[in-house]
This record gives sequence, C-alpha cells and structure tokens, in this order.
Amino acid sequence: MDIVEKLLNGSRLALSRTITAIENEYDEASSIMRKLYPHTGHAFVLGITGPPGAGKSTMTNQLAKAYRNIGKTVGIIAVDPTSPFSGGAILGDRIRMNSLTLDEGVFIRSMGTRGSLGGLSHKTADAVKALDAFGKDIIFVETVGVGQSEVDIVKAADTTMVVLIPGMGDDIQAIKAGILEIGDVFAINKADHDGADKLQMELNMMLDLDAEQKDWRPPIQKVVANQGEGINELVELIDKHYSYIKENGIMIKRRHERAKTELLELLRSSIGGYITKNIVKTGRLDNYLNDIELRKNDPYTVVHELMDELLKK
Amino acid sequence: MDIVEKLLNGSRLALSRTITAIENEYDEASSIMRKLYPHTGHAFVLGITGPPGAGKSTMTNQLAKAYRNIGKTVGIIAVDPTSPFSGGAILGDRIRMNSLTLDEGVFIRSMGTRGSLGGLSHKTADAVKALDAFGKDIIFVETVGVGQSEVDIVKAADTTMVVLIPGMGDDIQAIKAGILEIGDVFAINKADHDGADKLQMELNMMLDLDAEQKDWRPPIQKVVANQGEGINELVELIDKHYSYIKENGIMIKRRHERAKTELLELLRSSIGGYITKNIVKTGRLDNYLNDIELRKNDPYTVVHELMDELLKK
Repeated sequence: MDIVEKLLNGSRLALSRTITAIENEYDEASSIMRKLYPHTGHAFVLGITGPPGAGKSTMTNQLAKAYRNIGKTVGIIAVDPTSPFSGGAILGDRIRMNSLTLDEGVFIRSMGTRGSLGGLSHKTADAVKALDAFGKDIIFVETVGVGQSEVDIVKAADTTMVVLIPGMGDDIQAIKAGILEIGDVFAINKADHDGADKLQMELNMMLDLDAEQKDWRPPIQKVVANQGEGINELVELIDKHYSYIKENGIMIKRRHERAKTELLELLRSSIGGYITKNIVKTGRLDNYLNDIELRKNDPYTVVHELMDELLKK
Repeated sequence: MDIVEKLLNGSRLALSRTITAIENEYDEASSIMRKLYPHTGHAFVLGITGPPGAGKSTMTNQLAKAYRNIGKTVGIIAVDPTSPFSGGAILGDRIRMNSLTLDEGVFIRSMGTRGSLGGLSHKTADAVKALDAFGKDIIFVETVGVGQSEVDIVKAADTTMVVLIPGMGDDIQAIKAGILEIGDVFAINKADHDGADKLQMELNMMLDLDAEQKDWRPPIQKVVANQGEGINELVELIDKHYSYIKENGIMIKRRHERAKTELLELLRSSIGGYITKNIVKTGRLDNYLNDIELRKNDPYTVVHELMDELLKK
C-alpha cells in the first residue's frame, strides 16, 4: 500500500507523514494531495482564533473532549505563526493537551512556518484536507488572531470562533475591531475575571451595530475554560451556527470562496517555485541586485523585464 | 512639476499622495517608485515591534521626540495588520501622536491591509522608500510583532527594536521565542510594573545562550515610555547598533538581503496581478472551481495545467 491508501485506511503514521510532507514542501506532497482530494469535503472545520493569552489551547482542549463525548472524531491543527525561526511549532502549551493524545479518536498536529517559500495558510489548508480525507468529523484550526495571514488561516473554516478575555490593553481594541467581522461565535474566556461583563457589553454593542446587515447575529458565550464552565453551551452555539450555514446555503458559498482562494494561492506558490528555480538558483537574481544596489537599475524596471521573459502573453 | 519632483522638493502633500498610491495599488505607483528609487538608500530604518499592548506607539512617540531634539528628521510608518476588513489603519492610539504632527520635521502615516492583492510588507517597503527619497534621516516602521508577515515587515529595517512588557500570559513566551532572533535592541516597557526584573533576567538568559554565535549581544533597556524614562538611554543603544552594523559591513549585507526579498516579492505580486487579469477576470477560474467542487478535478492538476499555459518554459 502506498501512503495515500494507508492514510485512507486509517493509518495515523501515514497521516502524520503526509502533514510533514506538506509542511516541508516535499515533492511527493502534491501527488499525495491530488489523490486525497476526491475524499475531502466531509469534515466540519472550526476556526479558533483570538489574541495571545486568551486561552485558546485550553478552550480547544475542552471543546475536543466535549465533541468526543458525543462520539465525534476530532482533528486539531494548531498553527503557530510566532515561530518563524525555530523551524516548526513547539508551543509549550501543547503539552497541556497530553490527555487528548491518548485518545485514538483525536489527532493533534502543530504547524509552524518551517520553510520560507510557501504560505502557512496554504499548508494549513492542505493539512485540513488530509485530516478530512482521513475521516475526522470535526477539524479545529487554532491560531493566534492578530495578523492578516492568521486571519486568512481561520477564514478557511466553516465556522469561526473568536476567543477574547477581559482586561487587556489598548491594542486589543484594534484587534477586536479587526476580528469582529470574522467571528461567527464569540467566547469570553476567563469570565470569572474582572471586566468580563464590561467586555460582553462592549461586544454586544459592536455586534448589534453590525447585525443590521446580517441574518446571523453572532452569539457571545462566557466561559471559564480551565474549569470546563460554559463549554457545553459553546458547543451548542457552534452546532447552531453549523446548522444555520448548512440550511441557508452559506456553507456552500463559503466553501466556494475557500476553494477559490486556495486555488489562487496554490498557483501563486507554484509560480514562486518556478521563479526560484529560474531566477534565483541560476544566479541571475544576484546580477540584477548588483545593478539595483548601485542604483544603475531599479526593482520596478527589473520586474517588468522579467515578466516579459517568464510569461506567455 | 509632477508628483515625483514635488515630493523630492519637499511637498508633504506629494509624499502623502504617493503613499496613498502605494497603499491602493494605483497604476501610477510603480512609475513613481521607479523615479524615486535613485534617491533612496540614505535613511536609517528602525523597526519597532512587540506583542499587543506593549506600548509601542508611546515608545515610538518618545523616540521621535528624542531624535527631533538632536536635529534629525523623522518618518513614521505605523503598520496595522489587525484591520484587514476596515479598509485602512485607524488605530485609536495614533491620536496620542498629535503633539508630533504639529512638527514639520515629522511625517506620520498609518498603513493597513487595504486591498487584498499586494502584500502589506511590500507596500510598507515602498512607503519607506518614499520617505527615504523625501529626505527623512530616520524612519520608524512600527508593527504588532506576532505573525510571520509582521516579522517580515520589521525584517526590512536596518535595526530592529523589540518592545516587551512584564506580566503577560503564556503565549508571550512563544512570541518571545519567535522574535528573540530578530531583536537587535530590547526595550522592557512599563518597567515600573511588577515582573520587570524577572522578565529582564529571563531575557538576559536567553540572549546569553544565543550570544555565543554572534558578535553583537543585544542589550536590554528598561523604559517607562509614558514618562520618558530610559528613552535617551535607548537612543544611545540604537545609535550604537547603527554604528556597529555600518562599521562591520552588516548593514550592507542586510540591505542586500532586503533588496533581494523586495525584488522577489514585487515579482510575485506582479505575477499575481497577471493571474487575476487572465484567469480570474475572464471567468475561467469559476469553470475550474466548478469541476473542483464536484470533485471532477482537483486543484493540484488545475495548477499544473495553468502553469504550462501561463509560463514560457
């Protein structure tokens, strides 16, 4: 059996190797993905995001347990965009998930920004597809929601949950504004801390303002994740959103948008590889750079010339 | 006079319009940049990054005043990757900078992720060049340092300052690990708060471990930015690093790397535009997507075909 057959037959090792191939951009990755693709489209994908320190992994942990209790199999991809240099994601708090790793119905994988060519969101999307083809019922994609690229990662989900906590600084206001529009469900974690009511009130105000143009008014659930409080209620809200998007054709629309973004990103990343092979590795880039640095040429003119040379027009 | 001449003659309006053209990807942007390019390469670029809530804008504000006091002209680009949907960067704390905007020697501009095609780091780099050609002595590029793309933004600097504060959550550990390697100078802001000594000790340990392979051991400065404490000392450390990289050929090396990254990114973004024009706007993408969604085709095969069609081989 090849790796694809093994994965489809339930081999965790084959799944793990596939994600490693995706992460490291091994040549075999795209032929594996080509064969896995027809087996995708069944899993429900839940994006989980929020500012640093919001307790997203504890929340993910508890949600995974709750879904396991109702018999669903769970895949977790924890995207760590904060470790661009360490060669992979080694979040300390992954360790807290140990209780889950003993459960065969759960597969957990961290992904960092190992390798510089491909985009992390493209790799995350492929890892989601691998878990989907593997047969997981629900796939969590968890990431720190601050930058644009991280927002792109959760945009790949069917339903997006935004986790906030009371009592953070000024920048949090800005973050809140930025991720307000992507949240389908909001969780206020550490709801036993001061300021939870104030945060809920503020959020409600902002969401009400926004709700006039929308059919779905994102609900807010208070949670104390490390004590499991509010988790079952949260699962209910997530399921409610899932039913809503399925019944209203929104899920089909979102998946169409997702497929579009993914196709374009894959195309751009492939062309990027072609450029690297033809311009960078041949040493031509260095010649151009030399002229640019001496101000004998400029990047805009160089790119214009290269476009003429590389592309059929 | 055209916009380029006006900018080179010191028109703030022309500068402002140029950055707007860059931000919105107007067609004229690349012809403006082509003409500005020969006038660049003189400014010192300082990257300022750190987690949300670290007080980066207050710090930037104080540093700008300190540099103004020694007669330097200052440009500030505040990159706000947290507002992908609001159509531009409107950080509330920009308002705090008002005292600076009255000073003709300072030019402040916020940039968000308006428009979806081009990368924010590419636009930031062009805005830096515009300020450089305009004649600013020192240019600050300030951004929230959490995601990969934000790290890319500050990597475009000659010297990078990382701002941290005591007493943040678990995720901060991960962030610290991620941005440790890009910091040339570290500032511990809110140093009058509990935990500042502990943070300094931890940072010192990590930097000592790292220092064995490096000539420059990044110094740490405690600061209370909103009271101006430690700012002059910080300026001294920044200047010390600037002298160090100039004298050791490191600046030339860094700028070479920067020029390389920028050239490749410009090329990719131009090719992205070409794809949009030829594949997206012609409706062909939708046909492909239809087949992909019905699982009659897969994205990997489609991309393979498109590469053959688009590229000269």
